[in-house]
Amino acid sequence: MNYYNFNEIEIGENATFEIKITENQMKMFAEISGDLNPMHMNSKYAKERGYADKVVYGMLASSFYSTLVGMYLPGEKCLLHKCDVDYRNPVYVGDKLTVFGEVVDKRSATRRLKIKGKMVDQEGKTVNTADITVGFTGD
Amino acid sequence: MNYYNFNEIEIGENATFEIKITENQMKMFAEISGDLNPMHMNSKYAKERGYADKVVYGMLASSFYSTLVGMYLPGEKCLLHKCDVDYRNPVYVGDKLTVFGEVVDKRSATRRLKIKGKMVDQEGKTVNTADITVGFTGD
Repeated sequence: MNYYNFNEIEIGENATFEIKITENQMKMFAEISGDLNPMHMNSKYAKERGYADKVVYGMLASSFYSTLVGMYLPGEKCLLHKCDVDYRNPVYVGDKLTVFGEVVDKRSATRRLKIKGKMVDQEGKTVNTADITVGFTGD
Repeated sequence: MNYYNFNEIEIGENATFEIKITENQMKMFAEISGDLNPMHMNSKYAKERGYADKVVYGMLASSFYSTLVGMYLPGEKCLLHKCDVDYRNPVYVGDKLTVFGEVVDKRSATRRLKIKGKMVDQEGKTVNTADITVGFTGD
């Protein structure tokens, strides 16, 4: 985990990590959310609608933006204020996603950072982008 | 689950459901995301920073917007395209959230709906709001 203070972090600061999407994550997300839509549960159903397989919940992928800010950029001393996610391409179980984030704005008056986020799959395809605002909970 | 077709759904159509936030959801979200930030894991840590208890992950609450669109509005035949969430007040384990959604725009050319979302806690406090875009996967 990173521990950046507000004063230490600069525009342009960035972080990246990789995660692999698993069947177990899909099961747990269904259990948390109660979203049992067949597009996310049933490969045959999704294939009949032109997808390569059942589609990973967009919101499951979005949960890695929570990780981006809470663990990496800026890490411990923050809380998520806003997260705007644009889902561009489907994600499938087994995909390896690279999660990127970069600080694009810093407001001293409100002690907030704006972060541009992006997730890219193992083929280099951007699966989603995000505009994130975080506030600081400590120095 | 609802099964609205694109032609059946009108601006003003709305849906609502309640969910209770549990410790088990928090554990599963930590396991899915790998976000181990102490603000979400450690009550003492969060209380020292002015919160009533450890704070529920914003993204965990957001997962109920996946449920809103995938199960209720419009239900089966959709996929999430965009979700912009503004986190306004902290959510705690044990809170009972009412999730609201209302169709505010409908674009025939792209077969997309815009939905305004809101989550309100048991005290009537708005904990977050959302601007959501969904696309149709069937008629």
